[in-house]
Amino acid sequence: MEGDTITAISTPMGEAAIAIVRLSGENALDIADQMFRGKQSLKEVDSHTIHYGFIIDPDTQEKAEEVMVTVMRAPKTFTREDVIEINCHGGLISVNRVLEIALSGGARLAEPGEFTKRAFLNGRIDLSQAEAVMDLIRAKTDRAMNVALNQMEGRLSNLIQKLRQTLLETVAHVEVNIDYPEYDAEEMTHQLLIEKLGYVQNEIDSLLQTAEQGKILREGLSTVIIGRPNVGKSSLLNSLVHENKAIVTDIPGTTRDVIEEYVNVRGVPLRLVDTAGIRETEDIVERIGVERSRKVLKEADLILLLLNNGEALTDEDRKLFEAARGMDVIVIVNKTDLTPEIDMDEVRRLASDHPVVSTSIKEEEGIDELEESIKELFFSGSVELGDMTYVSNSRHISLLKQAKRSLQEAFHGIESGLPVDMVQIDITRTWEILGEIVGDTVSESLIDQLFSQFCLGK
Amino acid sequence: MEGDTITAISTPMGEAAIAIVRLSGENALDIADQMFRGKQSLKEVDSHTIHYGFIIDPDTQEKAEEVMVTVMRAPKTFTREDVIEINCHGGLISVNRVLEIALSGGARLAEPGEFTKRAFLNGRIDLSQAEAVMDLIRAKTDRAMNVALNQMEGRLSNLIQKLRQTLLETVAHVEVNIDYPEYDAEEMTHQLLIEKLGYVQNEIDSLLQTAEQGKILREGLSTVIIGRPNVGKSSLLNSLVHENKAIVTDIPGTTRDVIEEYVNVRGVPLRLVDTAGIRETEDIVERIGVERSRKVLKEADLILLLLNNGEALTDEDRKLFEAARGMDVIVIVNKTDLTPEIDMDEVRRLASDHPVVSTSIKEEEGIDELEESIKELFFSGSVELGDMTYVSNSRHISLLKQAKRSLQEAFHGIESGLPVDMVQIDITRTWEILGEIVGDTVSESLIDQLFSQFCLGK
Repeated sequence: MEGDTITAISTPMGEAAIAIVRLSGENALDIADQMFRGKQSLKEVDSHTIHYGFIIDPDTQEKAEEVMVTVMRAPKTFTREDVIEINCHGGLISVNRVLEIALSGGARLAEPGEFTKRAFLNGRIDLSQAEAVMDLIRAKTDRAMNVALNQMEGRLSNLIQKLRQTLLETVAHVEVNIDYPEYDAEEMTHQLLIEKLGYVQNEIDSLLQTAEQGKILREGLSTVIIGRPNVGKSSLLNSLVHENKAIVTDIPGTTRDVIEEYVNVRGVPLRLVDTAGIRETEDIVERIGVERSRKVLKEADLILLLLNNGEALTDEDRKLFEAARGMDVIVIVNKTDLTPEIDMDEVRRLASDHPVVSTSIKEEEGIDELEESIKELFFSGSVELGDMTYVSNSRHISLLKQAKRSLQEAFHGIESGLPVDMVQIDITRTWEILGEIVGDTVSESLIDQLFSQFCLGK
Repeated sequence: MEGDTITAISTPMGEAAIAIVRLSGENALDIADQMFRGKQSLKEVDSHTIHYGFIIDPDTQEKAEEVMVTVMRAPKTFTREDVIEINCHGGLISVNRVLEIALSGGARLAEPGEFTKRAFLNGRIDLSQAEAVMDLIRAKTDRAMNVALNQMEGRLSNLIQKLRQTLLETVAHVEVNIDYPEYDAEEMTHQLLIEKLGYVQNEIDSLLQTAEQGKILREGLSTVIIGRPNVGKSSLLNSLVHENKAIVTDIPGTTRDVIEEYVNVRGVPLRLVDTAGIRETEDIVERIGVERSRKVLKEADLILLLLNNGEALTDEDRKLFEAARGMDVIVIVNKTDLTPEIDMDEVRRLASDHPVVSTSIKEEEGIDELEESIKELFFSGSVELGDMTYVSNSRHISLLKQAKRSLQEAFHGIESGLPVDMVQIDITRTWEILGEIVGDTVSESLIDQLFSQFCLGK
């Protein structure tokens, strides 16, 4: 039901000073007022004001919690509906108690992302802006947050809408020519089409150029550490984690929980995969088997290949180079505190174009150089794209690629001398595809699916 | 420095819709205004209003985050100082970014509990009310939260202050008699002393009667599951945890992290001790050694002793009864799905007065009865003390016991015919001890120590 009043806990779960229970909908004010006892009725107060009081248990009429309640009347709110935020104590019992009283007062538990979905459905933000809200919350680095913030402010939306406008005008122009054939400006029309569509294609290409970096900023650089047993994999992992802020996330998998750890290395978000495996057995291959390891390797964006400076290269080492062929690899010759036994010439030959870094993780040497190589690998060639509009979302990237293909169809048509009304079909299709990014031409089920990935309370 | 401006993240860490960065102090408004860009300056807005805008990075002058800022001017605030609450997106990067900008704007990172400490130092709440704030946040059951809420509202404080007032008036009365010996009302004075002190002692006794339950409500009933290997300890643990809301807390210990799990069983907060040990090895004794196990047992409030219905009792089982002697024990005869081999007569004899429950955890049978026994054990004899004032805090309990002893000294003095000015010393001492509960007569170092146990941002 659109418009009914929804509620959810909008702060993370845990023990802290403050937690927020949020309500949105046409009865938000009624429900809140009914559960609140303060100096005055919430119905009488000005919009965008905050009030001290107590939440009352409807059964016992006893005080259930001490709160501050913010009243924000439509339409200048997050959802464009009446919004109430109840700031209570940040305890598990207290916040759940307030939530339950709101529910028994007639609110419905919000679905994940439902507040943001309402902001979208009520026209305050478009779909790409709504998606940016979630990206912002999940951002693991400052750059990723900036990309999300720009997108949330509508930078991507504005560009997409500009391109769509161009396509629409072009179609309109063509239609005029079709409807009034007496003008007979066929040649001019072709010229115009090529010019306008060329502009749109260039813009789409620029956007797609930011996609790889944008996607990594958003999702993290999937990183795998490989090497023989006892070469220092878990020490390297711990060193990266301790030197930087680590964020551990448990992802419920199909068969077992995969543990990922995010590490922010000089602005590059490394997503260290299967760190639990490394921590437990010091050997990812041993633990998950050769076949699955290969798969993990193939899905990685970055491989950190560890060698032991104190031992000669083994066939196993050489097989690791083999397995990592064609991928982004940094070769780390560890244990420089030991007498060198490794053949560095062969290492460099095997490493080919990939960077080789020497470290003694034990002595905390070479870590700086390693982090610098990671940064260089990721940001190399890319100037600081401060003012660029990034695409970071897989859905957007996929739609931009589709739009590009559709435009190419249009170009083919023009080149092979198809009548403009045939070309027009491809242009309209491109216009529709771009519309899916901002949510103008998108199905209800896709919208439901997108917002269900949001966190509860957002 | 008192009065300088402090800041901290006041919501739990994690990913969610909203997080709050709070500021308090005389420059809170200046600092917030300087980092904020909205429709108008925060200095111009009314108190207790909320405003949409952006936090600006002071270095780049770029938008750093989209926020809602609440302005609350002294003195009607949590700390009685100017308070600013910045509601930003609940992401790790975003909330830390806002915090860092507040810090670089001149605020100081608050120490744990410093906001509440200021509320205390500025006279908005007394010490027992401040302590209740933390208890409320940490409450694991509804009852525990109600106890904290009552204490936060000043119910305990009011009672303590009433007792202190009585003691003060009594002393004053005695002093009048000393200063004006011509009235020579020695006998009357003794009578009055006994009456007044008797009243105070009764009230302290009533409070202390609630202490055991109050303490368990606050801290949880420390519960240990014991039994031979494979008798179903981890199944029982999982069953208790899954049937109820579990709260896992990691407590950094001196040598290793103790993992505790809270389970709310029909209003009784069970604190399941060393659950990690049980989960890993199914045998607490095996894992932590016999000596430490004994210690864990002795510190427990409740022992769940598991037996196997499908096997005859062993000497090991009998030793467990021995180890649990003198403690609160519930005997659980598990695996009722197996053919009974256990000698129930001997079990009942060994169990003596303790309840014996039969379960098949595998078949989910008998769990209800077990939970009911836990509830009965805890709430037995205790009527619903709805309107009682509970003491739950160990510090308060210890002070009340000291006050009681001090009063007894006074009584001894009166009985052995000591002059009233000698008795007066004990009365004044009692008055001081009670004053420590509400923080009237408490040292600065104790205050520092108490608030340091708070969470950051409170």
